[in-house]
Amino acid sequence: MFAYKTQIRLHDTDAAGILFFAHQFEIVHDAYEQLLEKLGFSFPTMLTKRSYFLPIVHAESDYKSPLFVGDKITVRITLGHIGDTSFSFVYTIHNQKNVLVGTAKTVHVTIDKKKRTKIKLPAEIRTSLEKFGKKK
Amino acid sequence: MFAYKTQIRLHDTDAAGILFFAHQFEIVHDAYEQLLEKLGFSFPTMLTKRSYFLPIVHAESDYKSPLFVGDKITVRITLGHIGDTSFSFVYTIHNQKNVLVGTAKTVHVTIDKKKRTKIKLPAEIRTSLEKFGKKK
Amino acid sequence: MFAYKTQIRLHDTDAAGILFFAHQFEIVHDAYEQLLEKLGFSFPTMLTKRSYFLPIVHAESDYKSPLFVGDKITVRITLGHIGDTSFSFVYTIHNQKNVLVGTAKTVHVTIDKKKRTKIKLPAEIRTSLEKFGKKK
Amino acid sequence: MFAYKTQIRLHDTDAAGILFFAHQFEIVHDAYEQLLEKLGFSFPTMLTKRSYFLPIVHAESDYKSPLFVGDKITVRITLGHIGDTSFSFVYTIHNQKNVLVGTAKTVHVTIDKKKRTKIKLPAEIRTSLEKFGKKK
Repeated sequence: MFAYKTQIRLHDTDAAGILFFAHQFEIVHDAYEQLLEKLGFSFPTMLTKRSYFLPIVHAESDYKSPLFVGDKITVRITLGHIGDTSFSFVYTIHNQKNVLVGTAKTVHVTIDKKKRTKIKLPAEIRTSLEKFGKKK
Repeated sequence: MFAYKTQIRLHDTDAAGILFFAHQFEIVHDAYEQLLEKLGFSFPTMLTKRSYFLPIVHAESDYKSPLFVGDKITVRITLGHIGDTSFSFVYTIHNQKNVLVGTAKTVHVTIDKKKRTKIKLPAEIRTSLEKFGKKK
Repeated sequence: MFAYKTQIRLHDTDAAGILFFAHQFEIVHDAYEQLLEKLGFSFPTMLTKRSYFLPIVHAESDYKSPLFVGDKITVRITLGHIGDTSFSFVYTIHNQKNVLVGTAKTVHVTIDKKKRTKIKLPAEIRTSLEKFGKKK
Repeated sequence: MFAYKTQIRLHDTDAAGILFFAHQFEIVHDAYEQLLEKLGFSFPTMLTKRSYFLPIVHAESDYKSPLFVGDKITVRITLGHIGDTSFSFVYTIHNQKNVLVGTAKTVHVTIDKKKRTKIKLPAEIRTSLEKFGKKK
């Protein structure tokens, strides 16, 4: 399973004293970028060398326990589904006491960059995701 | 129905050229803050004069069409549900061509600020939400 | 003088209860985008129809009084300097009590998009800035 | 010298394809938070256990070379000055090719949390900063 470690920063919080909910999506996306890099599909590569892109068409988060500035968290990513034209990732977030504080999910499609139309998942993405999905 | 008008800013976008998905949550929350202010429960009031707070326990967004810097958008808010200890808002986002480009939902609970425990919806919140929910 | 009105949002603040300093730069840039749009050089136009771009090479801010969520602010922009290859804008921020709470400055250069090298200020930019600079 | 390593994330960039200037301030503040934690004055400690806070009264950044998503950067911090009621930090940012891509400076004052008035630098802060300033 892929794990990404980070820390809640002051600018992740708001005047209520805890993580601002939208920033949880930034944090899981940071983890996703790290995972893509590991799988060989980093954003620099995709933005400059591929004819497709992987926009998010749905995102959701649950917030189970507040996160405070300085909290050390671990984001773990597992594969949700792989379809013909879409796939999803599922995220869990644990704090330094190993308490599950949040979860998230992102659903991605592949679109042709120039036409901005949905295309079938490219073979290189499918193969890589299937391989990732089999890991325990 | 409550409507909030705004514009996609450069810092809302990313290197893929479109709205970064997490920023859609910031935008609908801006609209929500405006609504709360109109209903008399603005954040300054809640942060300083109330014993409870309304954290988000679930949030989700759909992305139907890309948004670009400069796009003029309208966020409309309707009441989702009101329960004993939670309520939700549903958001639609239309662009300047009146195309539905995205939707979102936020689920809120009321917690006691000091104890950080879930409490029943305060009467003033319930009354205000019910009144808002009846508007067309 | 160009004036832009906005409001401090929850996500502009941090756990210290006030505007997070970096977000003041986002806010003055929002005002700058609005000004460019008024002058006919909006970001959509520049990103898609011009061979140059106007990156910031220096930015600075002063913070004179704390800003809280819900505060209504007015950002005013005046021209700093126009040089051969650069120009600057100066910003003041006043709150709802008309107190000067902050100032900022951004210095911009024009670069050729493809070569990513500095070029002389295009005539259309220079003319527009000079006209703006003469307004009181 | 204190060094903090991180990576440019998609949400740090904008539709012009490079780091959005205001996000450089977030990044150097992340480094500053890490430094404070190392010096024993972490934000959780300051927000909950100290009677003072260290707001920024001035911030500035220079941008020498564009930063792209995926770029690995190192932020180094040195002490600027220590005065009676203020101190400053100076930041350099190098990319993965060890090119200096940006610099920044933040000036901090200490204020009494309750009175929101400026106070003399607390002895524990002064001692710690002086010690840090002597390191090479």
